[in-house]
Amino acid sequence: MGTESDTYRHAAEILTRGESHRVWSLIVTIFGDLAQAEGERISGSALTRLVGLMGVKPEAMRVALHRLRKDGWIESLRAGRGSLHELTPYGRAQSAEASPRIYDPVRSYPDRWHLLLAGTGEMSGRAQLEAALLTGDYLSIGPQAAMGPGPMPGDTGALMAVETDRWACPDWVRAQVCPPPVLAQYDALHRDFTRLVAMLDADATGLSVPEAAALRLLVVHCWRRLLLRHPDLPAGFFPDGWPGSKCRGLFCSLMARLPSPTLNRLESSLTDPDSVSAALS
Amino acid sequence: MGTESDTYRHAAEILTRGESHRVWSLIVTIFGDLAQAEGERISGSALTRLVGLMGVKPEAMRVALHRLRKDGWIESLRAGRGSLHELTPYGRAQSAEASPRIYDPVRSYPDRWHLLLAGTGEMSGRAQLEAALLTGDYLSIGPQAAMGPGPMPGDTGALMAVETDRWACPDWVRAQVCPPPVLAQYDALHRDFTRLVAMLDADATGLSVPEAAALRLLVVHCWRRLLLRHPDLPAGFFPDGWPGSKCRGLFCSLMARLPSPTLNRLESSLTDPDSVSAALS
Repeated sequence: MGTESDTYRHAAEILTRGESHRVWSLIVTIFGDLAQAEGERISGSALTRLVGLMGVKPEAMRVALHRLRKDGWIESLRAGRGSLHELTPYGRAQSAEASPRIYDPVRSYPDRWHLLLAGTGEMSGRAQLEAALLTGDYLSIGPQAAMGPGPMPGDTGALMAVETDRWACPDWVRAQVCPPPVLAQYDALHRDFTRLVAMLDADATGLSVPEAAALRLLVVHCWRRLLLRHPDLPAGFFPDGWPGSKCRGLFCSLMARLPSPTLNRLESSLTDPDSVSAALS
Repeated sequence: MGTESDTYRHAAEILTRGESHRVWSLIVTIFGDLAQAEGERISGSALTRLVGLMGVKPEAMRVALHRLRKDGWIESLRAGRGSLHELTPYGRAQSAEASPRIYDPVRSYPDRWHLLLAGTGEMSGRAQLEAALLTGDYLSIGPQAAMGPGPMPGDTGALMAVETDRWACPDWVRAQVCPPPVLAQYDALHRDFTRLVAMLDADATGLSVPEAAALRLLVVHCWRRLLLRHPDLPAGFFPDGWPGSKCRGLFCSLMARLPSPTLNRLESSLTDPDSVSAALS
């Protein structure tokens, strides 16, 4: 990886910080960003060169692709001497579900939420509360309660249910939604995204097409990975000073500065000898 | 008490059922019903005869009045050879606060309620929740939550607060609000009030003024005593089949059949020789 541009090397360094991204998850990011629509495929060679720019070895990528096929995310087809990879319908659905949370310039949430409450006895909905929490749609609030978006369900069985359009969140709930280590990661991401925007503005033309694509994907991946560390909730659930909205604003600025290439343009740029030499060196 | 009318004796029997009413509480009922307004006083002799009709001995009444004076509910003044009793401003305020709950033909409740939630840690509002419950304005729902009428308070500190205009109550909350023994008392009161209405309709003219007053007061007292066994909540918080609204309807029918006498009329009827003989015999 010795022939990348200085801008790319510095930018990628900021986003990786010596931390190795999980390849499985990185490939999910790549397909979600570049090839989410039905029929969109990425060739094995282009994918190898793209992840190579992010420091991922071909063997690691093959292992990850194998696991993604086993888990039903990715389908691979032989094409001549190479192969083509695409999301399965399941993978597409998962990507589509995650996309608004990642890409929306401003997150919007329902006006109404609901709270489920269990009592202490066996017949007081404990098991139902556990089941609700397992869906991932609820925020656990202490041992007895869970809060979820939208109106309350029609049949709440043994649970007390309360529908609400107004609430106040104390510090202990905010710290549970976004604990200090996650808040620190937000602060770091805010600094990193700020630096990246400045770097790109200072050197707008210094990136090759594959570099711009790789950088975009690293940005999406860092952002997506941090979002997954906490539940999807309005700002009022987060600690004071949480820079979530500012980070989202910077993320959108970076997306505008690093627009997604068409798959054709990316494929041809990655099979262009200069790019290839950069990607494989 | 041998010269009361049959109707009174049967009716009073239904309402007392061998159970002795606490005299202190009975006198609170009497003043709340007959002499709640400022300046309204009941003479010692009229009071003695009135409670005598309910089976209360003069000594028991004197002890109760002494305690009520000590507790700041009642003031007593000497008047010639007798005495006059009246509610203190504190007693009047307490009575006035309880009256709507007792006498309203239909109870109305705020559209908005709020829920307070504590976590498990020390700094998560446990002490605040306990303090809220001590005010008597909240229904405890499991170890972590309490529900109260009206919008949520402005400053909820370490408590999670949720304002609501729609909720669903499971059986375990209903059974907590109105446990089986209280529900059984409601069913019994429903039967008793139904019988009383029928008795009064069958023999509308058979009661003397003091008997009608005493019967009215026994009805109010039984009703008030049962209401105090559970928190003041809308029907949706009570077990299915709870006859609370039906009991309230019957209570209002009884109040209409046993209208409150003016204090003057009551005093003169209780010093009328016939009534006196009835009351003192």
